[in-house]
Amino acid sequence: MTDALRVTVWNEFRHEQKPDGKPRELYPKGIHVAIADHLKKQPGLQVRTATLDQPEHGLTEEVLANTDVLTWWGHMAHHEVSDDIVDRVQARILQGMGFIVLHSGHYSKIFKRMMGTTCELKWREIGEKERIWVVDPSHPIADGIGQYIEIPHAEMYGERFDIPQPDELVFISWFQGGEVFRSGCCFHRGRGKIFYFCPGHETYPIYYQEEVLRVIHNGVKWAAPPETAVPTFGNPGPLEDVKPAE
Amino acid sequence: MTDALRVTVWNEFRHEQKPDGKPRELYPKGIHVAIADHLKKQPGLQVRTATLDQPEHGLTEEVLANTDVLTWWGHMAHHEVSDDIVDRVQARILQGMGFIVLHSGHYSKIFKRMMGTTCELKWREIGEKERIWVVDPSHPIADGIGQYIEIPHAEMYGERFDIPQPDELVFISWFQGGEVFRSGCCFHRGRGKIFYFCPGHETYPIYYQEEVLRVIHNGVKWAAPPETAVPTFGNPGPLEDVKPAE
Amino acid sequence: MTDALRVTVWNEFRHEQKPDGKPRELYPKGIHVAIADHLKKQPGLQVRTATLDQPEHGLTEEVLANTDVLTWWGHMAHHEVSDDIVDRVQARILQGMGFIVLHSGHYSKIFKRMMGTTCELKWREIGEKERIWVVDPSHPIADGIGQYIEIPHAEMYGERFDIPQPDELVFISWFQGGEVFRSGCCFHRGRGKIFYFCPGHETYPIYYQEEVLRVIHNGVKWAAPPETAVPTFGNPGPLEDVKPAE
Amino acid sequence: MTDALRVTVWNEFRHEQKPDGKPRELYPKGIHVAIADHLKKQPGLQVRTATLDQPEHGLTEEVLANTDVLTWWGHMAHHEVSDDIVDRVQARILQGMGFIVLHSGHYSKIFKRMMGTTCELKWREIGEKERIWVVDPSHPIADGIGQYIEIPHAEMYGERFDIPQPDELVFISWFQGGEVFRSGCCFHRGRGKIFYFCPGHETYPIYYQEEVLRVIHNGVKWAAPPETAVPTFGNPGPLEDVKPAE
Repeated sequence: MTDALRVTVWNEFRHEQKPDGKPRELYPKGIHVAIADHLKKQPGLQVRTATLDQPEHGLTEEVLANTDVLTWWGHMAHHEVSDDIVDRVQARILQGMGFIVLHSGHYSKIFKRMMGTTCELKWREIGEKERIWVVDPSHPIADGIGQYIEIPHAEMYGERFDIPQPDELVFISWFQGGEVFRSGCCFHRGRGKIFYFCPGHETYPIYYQEEVLRVIHNGVKWAAPPETAVPTFGNPGPLEDVKPAE
Repeated sequence: MTDALRVTVWNEFRHEQKPDGKPRELYPKGIHVAIADHLKKQPGLQVRTATLDQPEHGLTEEVLANTDVLTWWGHMAHHEVSDDIVDRVQARILQGMGFIVLHSGHYSKIFKRMMGTTCELKWREIGEKERIWVVDPSHPIADGIGQYIEIPHAEMYGERFDIPQPDELVFISWFQGGEVFRSGCCFHRGRGKIFYFCPGHETYPIYYQEEVLRVIHNGVKWAAPPETAVPTFGNPGPLEDVKPAE
Repeated sequence: MTDALRVTVWNEFRHEQKPDGKPRELYPKGIHVAIADHLKKQPGLQVRTATLDQPEHGLTEEVLANTDVLTWWGHMAHHEVSDDIVDRVQARILQGMGFIVLHSGHYSKIFKRMMGTTCELKWREIGEKERIWVVDPSHPIADGIGQYIEIPHAEMYGERFDIPQPDELVFISWFQGGEVFRSGCCFHRGRGKIFYFCPGHETYPIYYQEEVLRVIHNGVKWAAPPETAVPTFGNPGPLEDVKPAE
Repeated sequence: MTDALRVTVWNEFRHEQKPDGKPRELYPKGIHVAIADHLKKQPGLQVRTATLDQPEHGLTEEVLANTDVLTWWGHMAHHEVSDDIVDRVQARILQGMGFIVLHSGHYSKIFKRMMGTTCELKWREIGEKERIWVVDPSHPIADGIGQYIEIPHAEMYGERFDIPQPDELVFISWFQGGEVFRSGCCFHRGRGKIFYFCPGHETYPIYYQEEVLRVIHNGVKWAAPPETAVPTFGNPGPLEDVKPAE
């Protein structure tokens, strides 16, 4: 990957536009801008944003064709995402586009599509503490952070998290109220790679926390499209001389 | 599981009804009957069949609620399976029903739904030899067979097979024409377990081959529903006293 | 498996023989007897025990040859286990014997041998609460228990646990002091299956807790030897006519 | 990783020193030199070699401390590798050093140590054809090669290959004589990453084949040490106020 990695930061961008709420106070320009502002400071990335209320949710064929890694945050309007766009994003992931799913994005149509499961979980919002432990220190997604990340006030997401067993499990979270959660999960799907990362909520300043942003950046790099051959499918002739057995 | 395991053998049942064809000659009562006849001879199983052209494809709410393991064969009419039934089958798998997908069932709506990928592959039908190697001899799905199964004449299914990495990979096939294939693949999804098994084609007598039937039977036993707690999702109170950090 | 499953419950049996200690008070006949007494009540099991200070640690060639599943508890005398016996147990596991490793057995020579890693972890003994969450409700090792098991007073074992990623991760523990732990881990090795289960300490009555005993019993059943072909290795002739390419 | 990645190419270097043999003819300076010569041409790598007959097998504490990725080829003298050096290499891998195991290195002491299994396989040397299929096109180890690599004349390595299920399976080989083999296998162990790659034999010019060298190079990059926190083990105080339950 000698050229810049082209990242599109997608956000539902509804909570933050409601007047007088905590989300607007914390993220006046939207969660996408907080994340994109961080990524724009990193070398080798070319970053843009897209949001639900743009035409085609900002995810036109042209935008996706020019996106190497897509990050996704949604919550209250999952059902408003059009099935056509879900089809389109799925196809691009399978072709090789990286996909980073953040927090409540677990319940988006596109994440459920990619997983084949309900993606349901337990949740609770009382501002409790979360401690995100690294369980795979060989994994580049944990680069540059300590043995754990502490989130002072977080929404609890707890097991059972109805996803397939991750191909690589990087983080497990501890919650003050008594639950655990597989909070950093890697999946290979088609030619694409998917990273689910738990932290982040519209009423907490989590997307300003340095370690959280570092993990998102690590995830973007890890999910960069491969430079592998595109598999062909269908009906090829034999590669060997075949004289079928009698 | 003290009671009988209730198995429903599903078949598209179209090829075999065409007059004067090889499928009809080989499987005059249908592929489902060949498989069900074998399973009916096994202890502890209670076996019925269902086919595409029955009302609700034979998969009513009542049938599915009383099915512990569902086996699936389809080929030429995947698109005729109604999306409502696909939704229903997916929900039952996630609740715990075992699911055995056979041969061309790889391209069924329900298997694609469960995998989240295209499930495409390479294929060729020239009657070449297939040799199915056991790569995980600790796995009960390989019980009772040798180090490999030889299929004298098979349809070639070759990599790249566009599925998620199996949770447990039991078999890999060698084909005379030069390809390989992950031909015995286990997946845990929700409370359910899925086994994909490659052999079997409407123009070969593969579903009369003892070792193939043995593996299907092993798969049925392996995929039996667990007796685990049904997870709850949603918004529980904390299990611990929480005094959120300042 | 129509005949009884032959289980050998191994215990270091040192703590419990020290006079006037908590281990002796809790487990007067030894931890192995507490576990064996439970298993002996289960149908289809034939249970014996073996301990470190018996000749060959109670694990003669004859005993191992007649053991289908071996459970292992050790702590203060790991270094006293002879390397020859470790070789012997490893060979039997690879041949198909199931192996259940309990609590501090994580640091035994044989578990480290099977994992290829240090098997180190964090630990703390202040009697804190542990809550063991089921993260794979499709897995038979979780049969018959609820969404979690609560251990009122436990030794903390915390991540980073230096093991390979489990083939199947069934349980994750939450600890009151702030840590998490992959506490129910399945591994396939050779023809054998290994289950590591965290709970259990010589100063807590954990091996009298019904749910813990149930999981050990489930693990024994899951790890039963397969009835698969024993792979051959070495130098076979070709299965096909080979005319090497020029 | 802004600085150069320091690679040590290790070779047993015995076959090639025998007079008048095919290995000497093909690899007059040794297999290690063929591999190192290729890697030296790649940007960002600093490459040296080491061989069995050097003091401490060329793998002194100092050399290993300054090695980011170690590649390993051995065959006829596995038993001559000292256990102390095996301990040392294992420790370095677990600390984060990448480890690339080539061909007959599958049966080295150090690979068996890391796997915990026998690492046995089937083998045959009649110069048959091998075709190495990419089964995970999302994996960077497959970068830059086609859907498969063809090796005109290879030693057959066949299943059952007695290793743990790879964390990521990248390649599966087809052999003319009728076998298959998991020929590109990734493992995470401790902070280190291990890649086993099948091709390469002392009597074939495989280590001059461009695609094989490309995969080795890809493996080296993939296995680069992480920049993650080094986990601490042992007995920490609680991170939370603990009032043990009564």
